[in-house]
Amino acid sequence: MAVILINPFEVPEGKEKEALAFWEKAADFMRQQPGYISTRLHKAIVPWARFHYINVAEWETVDHFEKVMNSEEFKNLVGPYMKEFPHYPGIYEVIRT
Amino acid sequence: MAVILINPFEVPEGKEKEALAFWEKAADFMRQQPGYISTRLHKAIVPWARFHYINVAEWETVDHFEKVMNSEEFKNLVGPYMKEFPHYPGIYEVIRT
Repeated sequence: MAVILINPFEVPEGKEKEALAFWEKAADFMRQQPGYISTRLHKAIVPWARFHYINVAEWETVDHFEKVMNSEEFKNLVGPYMKEFPHYPGIYEVIRT
Repeated sequence: MAVILINPFEVPEGKEKEALAFWEKAADFMRQQPGYISTRLHKAIVPWARFHYINVAEWETVDHFEKVMNSEEFKNLVGPYMKEFPHYPGIYEVIRT
């Protein structure tokens, strides 16, 4: 069964476009990796949301995602933006509906 | 079209059961409110996730959810737990797939 990656992003005011461009770049890379299934980027529509963007993606396994996340190629790609857009990824399963 | 509520929870180590009980109580209340559609509670399956639980729910409109969130009844229900389990709700729409 697929696992769910959820990744909330903090975006400083006025930096929304830049953050989206960063996300697009990372997403394009992710789409080509083994184990990737799908992704949905959520944008906040209320001013009181702490996280302006939240990505919810499906991956085949935790291992597939961790391998990509820890790869030098990915670190080089996202490194320059890590501090500008603090984000807090985790991998999840649904336990209540 | 429905809107998406996403609510990541920070859970201090050893407090997972207590946090789940708190969530169940809030969810039971939410399920009875006008505008509520559905909910899925996600539990982290990796140790490096900052948020142990993330709720993803559907509501008919932003107004429906805000009305409940700002109600005295809801504030009284969750008030005692607000500080123990910091959480960062927002309402979202999907902008990229």
